[in-house]
Amino acid sequence: MATSTKPVLHGYFRSSCSWRVRIAFALKGLEYEQVPVNLIKDGGQQHSQHYQELNPMQQVPAVEIDGMIISQSLAIIQYMDETRPGPRLLPADPKKRAHVRMISDVIASGIQPLQNLSVLQKIGAEKVQWAQHFINRGFEALEPILKETAGKYCVGDEISMADICLVPQVYNAERFKVDVELYPTIKRLNETLIEIEAFRTSHPSCQPDTPEDLRQP
Amino acid sequence: MATSTKPVLHGYFRSSCSWRVRIAFALKGLEYEQVPVNLIKDGGQQHSQHYQELNPMQQVPAVEIDGMIISQSLAIIQYMDETRPGPRLLPADPKKRAHVRMISDVIASGIQPLQNLSVLQKIGAEKVQWAQHFINRGFEALEPILKETAGKYCVGDEISMADICLVPQVYNAERFKVDVELYPTIKRLNETLIEIEAFRTSHPSCQPDTPEDLRQP
Repeated sequence: MATSTKPVLHGYFRSSCSWRVRIAFALKGLEYEQVPVNLIKDGGQQHSQHYQELNPMQQVPAVEIDGMIISQSLAIIQYMDETRPGPRLLPADPKKRAHVRMISDVIASGIQPLQNLSVLQKIGAEKVQWAQHFINRGFEALEPILKETAGKYCVGDEISMADICLVPQVYNAERFKVDVELYPTIKRLNETLIEIEAFRTSHPSCQPDTPEDLRQP
Repeated sequence: MATSTKPVLHGYFRSSCSWRVRIAFALKGLEYEQVPVNLIKDGGQQHSQHYQELNPMQQVPAVEIDGMIISQSLAIIQYMDETRPGPRLLPADPKKRAHVRMISDVIASGIQPLQNLSVLQKIGAEKVQWAQHFINRGFEALEPILKETAGKYCVGDEISMADICLVPQVYNAERFKVDVELYPTIKRLNETLIEIEAFRTSHPSCQPDTPEDLRQP
């Protein structure tokens, strides 16, 4: 455990689940330290003995906070929301909270796990088509859901955990050359959100561990 | 939408995510209706136009409740917990809640999505080895986590959403011939939980849509 009293995020610049947590920290205005875990160097630093003690799933992110270690981004975000001041990341209304969690879980259980690094490594040569298939399947479901729930953001006019999940998933979709034009509501929400400071400062293109050739000012 | 005021669960007897929701209803002591969605008959009834309107992800479960439709089992369970009386499914203490959500998400995002029907159909011939690989990877991570958090149940001595996720995942593991003996904490928790009435009455072996040859009294 770090001795710092600031939360410590163990993450990777390009991991969509790490980005979710960075957005949440930024929206809450919380200071934190980043410890990079390079998912591809040395066969993957997430497999080191040291990191496995932080997160036995050997995935990022893991956060040291309040004397404990939490992995799983939605557990981290909801803990942060329940214990820190600042704008709420889940709405007060239980029905809206249900919508936020449903949208978050479509992404966090229905899409992201099927296109994450360890799965694609196992798929091998057809990994791009595999990722495209599951991202498209998820976006085909998200589009009509968001058409019902969205206002300015994914659920009404308040930024929430659903938005925190959406933007990094769209970033992944673009990396895998999924045609986001097919999903006008997703596209519109992403374009609105990506302009917001907390989403910009947490972007994979400007993290401490972003390689020089991928860095954008 | 059903006209009933009771919640309506669209599910499948053997779906682990449907079972999670049945356990939650049973723990809360809530009456509900079940509408079976046969995932293998007619090419999969979850793909019907009618069902897609309930859940565009074409997966079970989906619940009609309080005039809305929620899919994604953890969103359903947490909505139920936030709006219904009865024993809490998430602890009052935020740190324990974080542990419950972390364990739930290791299963709901880290294991189950990789061994669900649509993925295994795409994997084809090697589907059993594939499922075993990801269930073992998940259980290898869950075992040390649960060793830290468990009391009588997954997190301390209160039944929670983590237990609701664990038991159906162990059931899946056994279906895929994963050796649960390798995970003594998981095994011990499952053996304790499976004796509890809410877990027994909701078991896949005794649902309205359980086929005769799989039915147990």
